[in-house]
Amino acid sequence: MSDAPRPGEIALHKDPAEQPPDCGLVFIGRIETPWEDRHACPRRGAGSDTICTVQVDEQFAEGLKSLESCSHLILLYWMHEARRDLIVQAPAFDSVTHGCFALRSPVRPNPIALSVVELVAIEGRTLSVRGLDCINGTPLIDIKPYFAANDCVPEASVGWHKDRTHPERRSKDL
Amino acid sequence: MSDAPRPGEIALHKDPAEQPPDCGLVFIGRIETPWEDRHACPRRGAGSDTICTVQVDEQFAEGLKSLESCSHLILLYWMHEARRDLIVQAPAFDSVTHGCFALRSPVRPNPIALSVVELVAIEGRTLSVRGLDCINGTPLIDIKPYFAANDCVPEASVGWHKDRTHPERRSKDL
Repeated sequence: MSDAPRPGEIALHKDPAEQPPDCGLVFIGRIETPWEDRHACPRRGAGSDTICTVQVDEQFAEGLKSLESCSHLILLYWMHEARRDLIVQAPAFDSVTHGCFALRSPVRPNPIALSVVELVAIEGRTLSVRGLDCINGTPLIDIKPYFAANDCVPEASVGWHKDRTHPERRSKDL
Repeated sequence: MSDAPRPGEIALHKDPAEQPPDCGLVFIGRIETPWEDRHACPRRGAGSDTICTVQVDEQFAEGLKSLESCSHLILLYWMHEARRDLIVQAPAFDSVTHGCFALRSPVRPNPIALSVVELVAIEGRTLSVRGLDCINGTPLIDIKPYFAANDCVPEASVGWHKDRTHPERRSKDL
């Protein structure tokens, strides 16, 4: 996401990547996908049938106990190639700009991505999952069980997205 | 979460809080709730009707553009009081232990919590939301729009949770 800002986009005065951090993360593993750069990634992980692999580091392996009983997981991962300073963005699929917090763009002050995935199999520290769209080698931050009672809101709506002007246009921003 | 480990719990040899971080986060705001310590928090944010307040810092305010059109949001926040080294845990509501990645416990290598909330109102940099259960003053990391097409999985199940032995027992771990 090193592209120059598009018309209407706004960058922060202070790049969060250059600021002293308020807290630090450790990577707990890596995600293996068939996509080597962001232009090759599918538009929406939830719409992809590709099975990807999550390799959890040895030191965190015991944290996987009981995970095999979960049908779906929430994965948090670090968009290590994303810039962090673009606070207002112009997605390709709309003619107006939106704040980064109204978008699922990887470009945000803390470039943490979230995907809901189906757990297909676990073997040791290796998870096979369906529903990812990130590039190969993406660092993993967290794995959480998906609880439908808390996490599922069928009636949720995103007004700007429903009204977007160019839904057919390809973008990595969602 | 500074309590001593319970029977069967396993701590990491190296505490992630003491390791050199792989990446750093900036806090983008604070969450205001009526709960001053974790024992006062509701068991499940999704089951709480309390309206809480999210204050976004001035420097990130432009990132809220278009957020008012979203009915529900995903909030990521930093569980700043949680220990990070307990890889296997013994929730009060079960007689067996589980890995931290199969739990929604705040205690995990990267203590990032995730809540799906209803957006009740926005006024300037202040969001009113329903569905939180964190303590007052919790640092905010990210705001994302909730897309039902990607984020809602009604059929998801968590086997260990369905089979838990003491569902009536109170715990902050879920």
